[in-house]
Amino acid sequence: MPVPTSHRITIVRQPGGPEAIEIVERPIPELAPDEVMIRTAACGVNRPDTIERMGLYPPPPGAPEGLGLEASGVIKAAGSSVDRFKPGDPVCALVTGGGYSDYVIARAGSTLPAPEGIDLIAAAGLPETVFTVWANVFQAGQLKAGEILLVHGGSGGIGTTAIQMGKAAGARVFATAGSADKCALCERLGAERAINYREEDFAEIIKEAGGANVILDMVGGPYVQKNIDCAAFRGRIVQIAFLQGSRIEADLMRLMLKQLTLTGSTLRARPDAEKAELAKAIEKTVWPWIAKGQFTPEIFRTFPLSQAAEAHRLMEAGGHSGKIMLTP
Amino acid sequence: MPVPTSHRITIVRQPGGPEAIEIVERPIPELAPDEVMIRTAACGVNRPDTIERMGLYPPPPGAPEGLGLEASGVIKAAGSSVDRFKPGDPVCALVTGGGYSDYVIARAGSTLPAPEGIDLIAAAGLPETVFTVWANVFQAGQLKAGEILLVHGGSGGIGTTAIQMGKAAGARVFATAGSADKCALCERLGAERAINYREEDFAEIIKEAGGANVILDMVGGPYVQKNIDCAAFRGRIVQIAFLQGSRIEADLMRLMLKQLTLTGSTLRARPDAEKAELAKAIEKTVWPWIAKGQFTPEIFRTFPLSQAAEAHRLMEAGGHSGKIMLTP
Repeated sequence: MPVPTSHRITIVRQPGGPEAIEIVERPIPELAPDEVMIRTAACGVNRPDTIERMGLYPPPPGAPEGLGLEASGVIKAAGSSVDRFKPGDPVCALVTGGGYSDYVIARAGSTLPAPEGIDLIAAAGLPETVFTVWANVFQAGQLKAGEILLVHGGSGGIGTTAIQMGKAAGARVFATAGSADKCALCERLGAERAINYREEDFAEIIKEAGGANVILDMVGGPYVQKNIDCAAFRGRIVQIAFLQGSRIEADLMRLMLKQLTLTGSTLRARPDAEKAELAKAIEKTVWPWIAKGQFTPEIFRTFPLSQAAEAHRLMEAGGHSGKIMLTP
Repeated sequence: MPVPTSHRITIVRQPGGPEAIEIVERPIPELAPDEVMIRTAACGVNRPDTIERMGLYPPPPGAPEGLGLEASGVIKAAGSSVDRFKPGDPVCALVTGGGYSDYVIARAGSTLPAPEGIDLIAAAGLPETVFTVWANVFQAGQLKAGEILLVHGGSGGIGTTAIQMGKAAGARVFATAGSADKCALCERLGAERAINYREEDFAEIIKEAGGANVILDMVGGPYVQKNIDCAAFRGRIVQIAFLQGSRIEADLMRLMLKQLTLTGSTLRARPDAEKAELAKAIEKTVWPWIAKGQFTPEIFRTFPLSQAAEAHRLMEAGGHSGKIMLTP
């Protein structure tokens, strides 16, 4: 089959609600030497996509046009300096844009062979969450076996990934979620204890357990103080979002006395070289967990690409658990 | 000379102002196998001493009785397992209490040979500030040559030490202080630029310089937000006190976007083994800086031990720069 020259991508002309999403035909850009073209099997829907759609999260300079930060599929073409991948290889990739489309252009360094043990559609749900959890829980947070990991938003895409990766690494995992069903999911995935934050005070429960060594937080707001309160001596608190706001009031005395580390990061703005380093570490450590069945991406629902707006509505309603996917 | 059995120490029976300080005669405790007895040449007055005097900073369990966190002098006796030091050796030591006295009991691991290049009285001004700066700027803050270090309270005991150690390590040092004289001292000690915080906005000046890679802060309060604002990408902000309060309001978005680390620590509560590790690193790296004249403790004034209350008044008035010392 010849390499195609045009395809569908998903854009937002006027920032707004899910109805702002448009699917349009565009030429496929030429491949740079270090890029691959992937015929999309599936792509993942992530929280930053909805924020970008609202016009509040501009893509970094040079990002491919269109929504979508991760995809899986089969290599269709490879740039001249790419020797790792050849046409026909099943892969998944982290991208800085353009994931909701028929063909995805990715840096070879941010592309991984599709892992053994799961199907190619499920593999599309890995990159954004696995890179995020690796960079924040394992790299910045330095989680070690036997330590306590507290995962907020435990039933979401990031949360379900963090619980399983934490457990696979030998940590004791605690999670927060907003319903009994979501808590049950967290415990099924390996959490020793899931805390329904609508009914229980997570900080008290974590303190009783001895304090959290690593806390992965995307909530912010009032959670910042509670995280400081329930972190163990030399605990690491990592912010990957602020769904309840980044403006906080807190008393930092315990941060000093307990020698805590409060840090955070975003994935998309990292340079390619760092993403390539993350990819290597992930292939070495996380792919074997998947092959052994210790970690399976939790897929909540898959929509056709043409229903990307529906997928956004579902994510924003917040009733899902695990990943929401699109297939072209 | 026989080993003495009693000596003067400095205690606080009723927490209060400087007048609460009493000098009393006490038996010298028996040496543990890993301890040394130092005949005091001088001891340093530190901010935590004044807070302890007010009853707001209780000594850790097992600390020797009395005020005082550092001293220098000559070894008078050594415990049975101490092979590093023998009677007559000039040393300085970090202690968890009892520094303002005729004889100081110290762990051998927290004791260092008095460095070449300065007199024994000046050596008493080193342990508290050098251990603090090493643990926070170099260990937690990971300061590297060529990076920008911002030192708040640049003219104080910690500040004058941090400026010189930062400069000796090849960093570009910026400092804040509260008067033209204090700023001149900071620049004389090696700061590229001292900022009079009463007249200038330090955050703006640091941002123009490219952002601080490491910030050593004992101010807290409104400085926390300003530190976040002026830190460079992946900057490390280390809190060693909160002179303007630990209750803060801040927007943490930039902490996440710039991948900053906000951390902190206190020295006194660290276990002996950690202090021994710090001592080894300091002897290896900082002592040669002193021998080469790259770092000299800045002594503001020396009082006789009997005037410890006067020394506290001077520290609390805030007009000093550098260290305040006592000699028995």
